[in-house]
Amino acid sequence: MNAEIVAIGTELLLGQNVDTNSSWIAQQLALLGVDVYAFQSVGDNEKRLETALRLACERSQAVITTGGLGPTVDDVTRKVAARLSQKQLVFHENIAKVIQDRFAHFRPGRPFPQVNLNQAFIPQGATVIPNANGTAPGFIAKVGKSHLACLPGVPSEMKAMFEETLKPFLKSLSPGGAVIKSRVYRTTGIDESALNEKIADVFENSTNPTIGVLAHWEGVDIRLSAKAESVEKADALIEELGRVLTTRLPNFIYGWDQDGLETIVGRMLTTRQMTLATAESCTGGLISHRITQVPGSSHYFLRGYVVYGNEAKKDALQVDAQLIRKKGAVSLEAAEALAANVRKAAKADIGLSTTGIAGPTGGTPEKPVGLVYIGIADEQSAQAFEFRFTGNRDTVKKRASQAALELLRRHCLQLPPKD
Amino acid sequence: MNAEIVAIGTELLLGQNVDTNSSWIAQQLALLGVDVYAFQSVGDNEKRLETALRLACERSQAVITTGGLGPTVDDVTRKVAARLSQKQLVFHENIAKVIQDRFAHFRPGRPFPQVNLNQAFIPQGATVIPNANGTAPGFIAKVGKSHLACLPGVPSEMKAMFEETLKPFLKSLSPGGAVIKSRVYRTTGIDESALNEKIADVFENSTNPTIGVLAHWEGVDIRLSAKAESVEKADALIEELGRVLTTRLPNFIYGWDQDGLETIVGRMLTTRQMTLATAESCTGGLISHRITQVPGSSHYFLRGYVVYGNEAKKDALQVDAQLIRKKGAVSLEAAEALAANVRKAAKADIGLSTTGIAGPTGGTPEKPVGLVYIGIADEQSAQAFEFRFTGNRDTVKKRASQAALELLRRHCLQLPPKD
Repeated sequence: MNAEIVAIGTELLLGQNVDTNSSWIAQQLALLGVDVYAFQSVGDNEKRLETALRLACERSQAVITTGGLGPTVDDVTRKVAARLSQKQLVFHENIAKVIQDRFAHFRPGRPFPQVNLNQAFIPQGATVIPNANGTAPGFIAKVGKSHLACLPGVPSEMKAMFEETLKPFLKSLSPGGAVIKSRVYRTTGIDESALNEKIADVFENSTNPTIGVLAHWEGVDIRLSAKAESVEKADALIEELGRVLTTRLPNFIYGWDQDGLETIVGRMLTTRQMTLATAESCTGGLISHRITQVPGSSHYFLRGYVVYGNEAKKDALQVDAQLIRKKGAVSLEAAEALAANVRKAAKADIGLSTTGIAGPTGGTPEKPVGLVYIGIADEQSAQAFEFRFTGNRDTVKKRASQAALELLRRHCLQLPPKD
Repeated sequence: MNAEIVAIGTELLLGQNVDTNSSWIAQQLALLGVDVYAFQSVGDNEKRLETALRLACERSQAVITTGGLGPTVDDVTRKVAARLSQKQLVFHENIAKVIQDRFAHFRPGRPFPQVNLNQAFIPQGATVIPNANGTAPGFIAKVGKSHLACLPGVPSEMKAMFEETLKPFLKSLSPGGAVIKSRVYRTTGIDESALNEKIADVFENSTNPTIGVLAHWEGVDIRLSAKAESVEKADALIEELGRVLTTRLPNFIYGWDQDGLETIVGRMLTTRQMTLATAESCTGGLISHRITQVPGSSHYFLRGYVVYGNEAKKDALQVDAQLIRKKGAVSLEAAEALAANVRKAAKADIGLSTTGIAGPTGGTPEKPVGLVYIGIADEQSAQAFEFRFTGNRDTVKKRASQAALELLRRHCLQLPPKD
């Protein structure tokens, strides 16, 4: 089975909103073994939407749209879907009731806007996709030989509706088809070309799984995609090649798929019953923000300091004024002192620190923008390491936060700090 | 003139990479008065790419592609562009030289991979778009009556090439054409339906500028898009309607376009020569991270504390143990104490604090997930306010950080803390 995805909304074509829905749906479709032919994005324009959907329905067995299901005249998806499926839009009393009840619950006392009832119209004969998280239901209409599934554009609503209704429907269309399964091996601390050298021959000799490489601020991701007749067989193919990757890159792979490094180190600290405190200068709180994105992080993350100015470093974390005068606030020594002192102040097992120059200003020939020192301390010792990151302020902060978490991961695993 | 944008790469259709290039290009095209008809995304597949480009070139005067210009067999854009423009691919010695020199500079001593020379082939007669930041040059080929411009997929390379070469080229195609200019008025602290009630009549009566509304965690954005014969006239149309919006929503509009609230409050603190310190519990460092995203924030941001555990609140910021026992760490009183105490500790003009329940666990019937207290203190007093946010852990953190920055903005402007 093949499918395509159409994102609807003038804000997309004006570049005011990035379409993340299509990617998410594509990931789900790949897991179902559905081959995605193309994405299209079109504006809130009946004629152009009709052209896009007609093309998609002609060449693909399933077409999934997001957006354009709101209550206003802008929202043309229902109308165009009805026309393509050669049916009338019919009013559903039960949907109207849900919409009215929802409104009364969330906006008690306010008059119900009649325009909202537009969302209760669905092409005749279409399957309704209930929306537990919002007002607009979706639907699946038959257009020629194709199935046209229309979902709202709000990601949380769309995702729940896909999972609960559309996914089982799509599965029922192609029982026993081939499955495409992907796994991403996530690496950090090694650049794309050095990584390539280590695994180039693996690349060349593998056709199933196929291998793709993608570099971004978190590191370099290696994607293995296997096609097989079952999820189990696809998994086995991935496992086999994955073992080769793990052997070639023993210290660099920190996780799989959506694993963030903050989640990985969180698990390590939890199983080791170790606690953490952070002292951040140039990363400005990004490390503690990332650590606290993980549910349950309060069990191991005790506290963080964002010691942005020199006063804060001296006063909040007792970094020696003379050290700062002699070596500078951006120095190996300052990073070491910050890591050691925050560990003590918080009575934590590990202290982690950053100090550097995020830019765009503040660099000098000796200490350029992108220079960051990262410190780590435990009961035995404190150590710091020098990094030079490229990119703008945001990228330097992100890369420094990633390198700090990686240093922590390697510390937990007793790996060398850098390879 | 109208245009469309085609993003190329199998990783897009597998959902492993979100296409942000198309949005960026669309923004630039809107500024040039170019109407964007559609986006398409296709995989690294010659036949499908040819179908997509043929369709695009038939209906649009300019077609811009990103991706598929790498050196490997995967990268089919050059080949397909040559076929559509009915020309041969020809080898450019000078491009080959640039590619070789670049490789020698960045990978000194490594043998030059001959495959890289594939990037020196360009369709005959096409205009080369030099790439100052990478190896793959782009080009503009004529396909029927349409101009097909092919750019690499790496955002930094693509953006520089668009600015330097493609933008002047597109301008030269339609001198004196109509301009579409947009401005986004950014609001926070008011929900979409309450905002709608305040400006519904403005919506209904305006056709130029058109008005669009988009809600997300930062708040509700109102986009005005004006079409006129010059940038100045479009600006004037936007100004006029913008004044109406500002009158209707006097306290809610915090900025324009890409303005982040962290940038706005940064400017306010700078002009007022005021300093800030933060004490974050549930937001975990996100507020200080956002504040320090702004270049120059070291001038007003002194330090931040991430007091995640109760011990940290008591020990690092002297929140009274009895207060925590009686009222709880998530309470108006704790937020007030955190704001007051961090202000004193940092010797700052303003202290800003958060304490709440980000979820997914930790909620109780009295103190559910999403309950957040935000405190603000100055020399005179400390005050805290209760908020209830919906969404997952990430969204609660983000919304709380936005509400805290908004409280700070309103404090700087001496506006009521909430409307």
